Amino acid sequence: MCKYNFYDDYSEGAHPSILEALARTNLIQAEGYGEDRFCTEAKQMIRTHLDNSDADIHFISGGTQANLVVISSVLKPYESVIAAVTGHIAVHEAGAIEATGHKINTLETDTGKLTPDDIKPVIDMHCDEHMVSPRLVFISNSTETGSIYNRNELEQLSEFCRNHDLLLYLDGARLGPAMAAPCNDLSLPGLSELVDIFYIGGTKNGALLGEAIVINHEGLKKDFRFHLKQKGALLAKSRVMGIQFMELFRNNLFFELGAHSDSMALKMADAIEKSGYVFLTKPVSNQIFPVFPDKLIEKLSEKYGFHIWKKMDDNSSAVRLVTSWATTEKAVYEFICDLKRFA
Amino acid sequence: MCKYNFYDDYSEGAHPSILEALARTNLIQAEGYGEDRFCTEAKQMIRTHLDNSDADIHFISGGTQANLVVISSVLKPYESVIAAVTGHIAVHEAGAIEATGHKINTLETDTGKLTPDDIKPVIDMHCDEHMVSPRLVFISNSTETGSIYNRNELEQLSEFCRNHDLLLYLDGARLGPAMAAPCNDLSLPGLSELVDIFYIGGTKNGALLGEAIVINHEGLKKDFRFHLKQKGALLAKSRVMGIQFMELFRNNLFFELGAHSDSMALKMADAIEKSGYVFLTKPVSNQIFPVFPDKLIEKLSEKYGFHIWKKMDDNSSAVRLVTSWATTEKAVYEFICDLKRFA
Amino acid sequence: MCKYNFYDDYSEGAHPSILEALARTNLIQAEGYGEDRFCTEAKQMIRTHLDNSDADIHFISGGTQANLVVISSVLKPYESVIAAVTGHIAVHEAGAIEATGHKINTLETDTGKLTPDDIKPVIDMHCDEHMVSPRLVFISNSTETGSIYNRNELEQLSEFCRNHDLLLYLDGARLGPAMAAPCNDLSLPGLSELVDIFYIGGTKNGALLGEAIVINHEGLKKDFRFHLKQKGALLAKSRVMGIQFMELFRNNLFFELGAHSDSMALKMADAIEKSGYVFLTKPVSNQIFPVFPDKLIEKLSEKYGFHIWKKMDDNSSAVRLVTSWATTEKAVYEFICDLKRFA
Amino acid sequence: MCKYNFYDDYSEGAHPSILEALARTNLIQAEGYGEDRFCTEAKQMIRTHLDNSDADIHFISGGTQANLVVISSVLKPYESVIAAVTGHIAVHEAGAIEATGHKINTLETDTGKLTPDDIKPVIDMHCDEHMVSPRLVFISNSTETGSIYNRNELEQLSEFCRNHDLLLYLDGARLGPAMAAPCNDLSLPGLSELVDIFYIGGTKNGALLGEAIVINHEGLKKDFRFHLKQKGALLAKSRVMGIQFMELFRNNLFFELGAHSDSMALKMADAIEKSGYVFLTKPVSNQIFPVFPDKLIEKLSEKYGFHIWKKMDDNSSAVRLVTSWATTEKAVYEFICDLKRFA
Repeated sequence: MCKYNFYDDYSEGAHPSILEALARTNLIQAEGYGEDRFCTEAKQMIRTHLDNSDADIHFISGGTQANLVVISSVLKPYESVIAAVTGHIAVHEAGAIEATGHKINTLETDTGKLTPDDIKPVIDMHCDEHMVSPRLVFISNSTETGSIYNRNELEQLSEFCRNHDLLLYLDGARLGPAMAAPCNDLSLPGLSELVDIFYIGGTKNGALLGEAIVINHEGLKKDFRFHLKQKGALLAKSRVMGIQFMELFRNNLFFELGAHSDSMALKMADAIEKSGYVFLTKPVSNQIFPVFPDKLIEKLSEKYGFHIWKKMDDNSSAVRLVTSWATTEKAVYEFICDLKRFA
Repeated sequence: MCKYNFYDDYSEGAHPSILEALARTNLIQAEGYGEDRFCTEAKQMIRTHLDNSDADIHFISGGTQANLVVISSVLKPYESVIAAVTGHIAVHEAGAIEATGHKINTLETDTGKLTPDDIKPVIDMHCDEHMVSPRLVFISNSTETGSIYNRNELEQLSEFCRNHDLLLYLDGARLGPAMAAPCNDLSLPGLSELVDIFYIGGTKNGALLGEAIVINHEGLKKDFRFHLKQKGALLAKSRVMGIQFMELFRNNLFFELGAHSDSMALKMADAIEKSGYVFLTKPVSNQIFPVFPDKLIEKLSEKYGFHIWKKMDDNSSAVRLVTSWATTEKAVYEFICDLKRFA
Repeated sequence: MCKYNFYDDYSEGAHPSILEALARTNLIQAEGYGEDRFCTEAKQMIRTHLDNSDADIHFISGGTQANLVVISSVLKPYESVIAAVTGHIAVHEAGAIEATGHKINTLETDTGKLTPDDIKPVIDMHCDEHMVSPRLVFISNSTETGSIYNRNELEQLSEFCRNHDLLLYLDGARLGPAMAAPCNDLSLPGLSELVDIFYIGGTKNGALLGEAIVINHEGLKKDFRFHLKQKGALLAKSRVMGIQFMELFRNNLFFELGAHSDSMALKMADAIEKSGYVFLTKPVSNQIFPVFPDKLIEKLSEKYGFHIWKKMDDNSSAVRLVTSWATTEKAVYEFICDLKRFA
Repeated sequence: MCKYNFYDDYSEGAHPSILEALARTNLIQAEGYGEDRFCTEAKQMIRTHLDNSDADIHFISGGTQANLVVISSVLKPYESVIAAVTGHIAVHEAGAIEATGHKINTLETDTGKLTPDDIKPVIDMHCDEHMVSPRLVFISNSTETGSIYNRNELEQLSEFCRNHDLLLYLDGARLGPAMAAPCNDLSLPGLSELVDIFYIGGTKNGALLGEAIVINHEGLKKDFRFHLKQKGALLAKSRVMGIQFMELFRNNLFFELGAHSDSMALKMADAIEKSGYVFLTKPVSNQIFPVFPDKLIEKLSEKYGFHIWKKMDDNSSAVRLVTSWATTEKAVYEFICDLKRFA
């Protein structure tokens, strides 16, 4: 691949300090299946960052797996999930949620975010045993279209859910970039106390692989390890997870990597805007969606990898550019130069 | 943990050459979800070792996940799996197979291995639509009790399955030690052509994590990636799998690590036998099951970690000792000395 | 209930000739589980009406059960169903299809019917293993809003499905009224050869209970009884099904009962139209949806049972009136009189 | 079929008073889906017979369906059922329970009945999240081998379950014959208070079809109708169930029919014993298992239908003879004569 890749945030390996930690601890013997000293220590570090010593934490290999284990573990057979039509579980997980037996009630939204006003009609409509019973609200932060929830939005959603006996679950595959976004006003402890369960994404924020599921809701804690095991999600050599998350949360690496991703994307966004292009959605984190003439897209495609997101009109399309913890200033600088050169 | 651990073969990290490869390739950009150059190359290397250019290969994070994805992908809803009662899927996977909708028909065996004579009565009994329809035979090599299939046994089983329209699936969590066992007369290509589908265990043979599913049966190849995705088993940063399996199969590391494990266990077995103890099952690979007086077990437990497998009589029990790619000669030597000292 | 019920078409028992047949055959001993002489004979009668001696036929107790057994038996785990958002499986079966592991891709339609133009974008969009793979198209005839497919519409849909490797399944809960509708131009053999699988509704057309699943597609025939048994749908005393369907299809009772239902509804529709009211959807079968002033609805509700379907504006709503094989001329006449009286 | 059928207890239709009740009420309009006046009244009658005004009662079309709905509604995904290897769910329901995601832990028993001593080792063994968590004990009364629980046995089992946080579920497909058995010392209220949930079999005791699920355990009552609907078990024309169970429980018809079945079988058993034959299991209800010479079996088979249950030695086999509410004195008398004549 001679193109520089703005396809996604999982094109490179892990932050070097993670690889070093894996090498440093390599021959220390440890328990398996999440009961090793490294997992224990990593959980403690995350609890400190959450400012919540009661949170239950479990490590898991990927995001789709996190979503399907969490959702299938908290719902009764006849209960459903409410999600935005752009939510990752709605289309891009090959029916993983339905495969565990549960319907997803999808909602159209402009922003990728859900509000109480979006959700209210769904729960009003599902009123008897001829229909499923919506029980969990699925949101992502940042969303699949790069937007993030501000404190006020999440508070309103959380309050609405608690008043309507709905659980609130947040997919944090890109929580690092969301927390580090310049316009973000939510802290990690602040976010955590507003949701019942969420996961902190490692794969897309500098780990080799791995996500940390955080359970705040007391009723959901019991027996979660049975669900993990049954879905093939309890890794024998769990140390691999513990060691990585120790590095991410020992100090602030997790947030620094998110900040780097954002900063690279927003630098590009700034140049794109100054060049006179508009965006499908306001650029705020490490995924940006500029609208380019198709001819420009053609030229850029020869040097850069990215997805064409949506045909806008006969001559232009929105594209998705994603940056990661490993995106270089040099690549961003080149892209900006090429943008002007090709225009 | 100040005890030396003979609990299992996943107590340490990865073989150093694997960690080095991860570091060396860390910033090379690559595709995700199994379509990266590393996975492609690793698959090619494994195909060479299998002497089969047509095999479909997929990487997955762990053994329970491999078992549940494979089994649920090949069976129709009313079809069942036949397994030894000691088979990993029968008890030790928290109902992972049943959670995908399929019954396991279990069989008592002395050896942990299955024979045509074991299986015949099960398929004879299941004769109409009031019962499930057995369709896949699950075996492990090495088995959960340390035994291995010889060429003749596997040929007979394979022929029986083909004659009775049964698929044969081999769980190779410990395939490295099985292939490297001194008494083994099966080659990897030889084994491969006798089964429809199997997996090559990385986690328990020197990788950080990961198993390689090998599909030989043409009818099972189509759409396997849909099944992987739906079960949360398609890793975004799949490079982690590819890079590791490249190291294991670039030359013969996979077999060398298995041979080391076996050699450490058999050295202990030899000393144990010479000290006059018997074994629950004949020691042939990296899991051995000596019968010790309970008083000896008590003393050994202070310095070494291992499982008590089975109470034999009022004064003695069988224990399980497991060695790995990382077990040291020094630890083995010490154990042997202590065995004599504590006797 | 002193109100006369236009709620639905399952408010009364069975056509008297069915009850008589049950009594007449009561003490004749017969096999169970669908293998009795009555089921055999009923299947033969239905095959004659279908003009298809190769059709596989199975009797089942209700419509939701028919839908879930059929759909789960024909789909692989990652395959999905396409249905109108008004389709019975989409909302009104408590997630029964998802509970068998399959996603429903829903489409907005004005008519309750699906066309190739509706379906094309769905199959175009689902292009890789990150998404489900749409495989079966679910339609109802008559639909949940009372409309019916004409020959041309069903031919086009059928051809499209065959060209795109999609299976076509028709829910015939109200197939009797659909076939008997004055504007219908499809024969039962004609309809049957255009779909891969469908069911003929007994419950809503004069039986005590029961639906007849008809499988035309060769590939779907094998092992269907396993699926029935596994879902709890194989009745021990299957004679109850066979005896009823013998009466429905011995001659033309099935069609006569549908014709009666339609005629009662269309008589009401005619009077409603003459009184100057409009309809939400054109009345063609035994479900009609007139738009009435709310004040009129209030008065009618005192004497008649029916569902308020949809609020139209501040002062009027569409209601659903359903007639059945047992609806009396007297009740229809009274309703028409009251309509004028209350206006 | 010119042979007289002792195959099973579902060879004939319904008791005449049930057919008469269906005819008598045929044109009375009623609600659907279990909310009709007939179901309401039938539930009240059953509650009176149970001497328990708090029991939740639901009607369902068959036994396998009852078992799968009950079990899947009360278990969490990782929880399992304990059953005798002869239990109906273990082999003869085509994997219906596993299809809902749950493992069955089977136990060998001589009697078809379970005791605390049978169950204890199973729950002791299942100790962590690598295994399923046994949560429900499945028993049948009468059992699949014709035996019945006496008061003392059921009390001990019930107490054991309550002390070990296990739910106790009783499959009462043949509860009528069990309750009416001469050696039975359990009353229906007595049995009911010892189990958490059970069903009262109609299909095998004089109904056209139908079973009544009785839920005593408070925690299992909520939302059961959602489970019924989702599994396709909520019949639209539920009046069919209500009307039948009203007849069975208006007075004592349910018990009288069971008594007739038992009396016919025990009359045969008495003659068989007097003729010098032994039984596989002691005959106490409407299923008996005499051991006959194979030559006698051959001759009897020409006039009578029955299952050969088990080969006993080279010259003899156990057979199963089943009687029903409709078995005639004449048939029993003839069988007894033929037994002597053919001997």
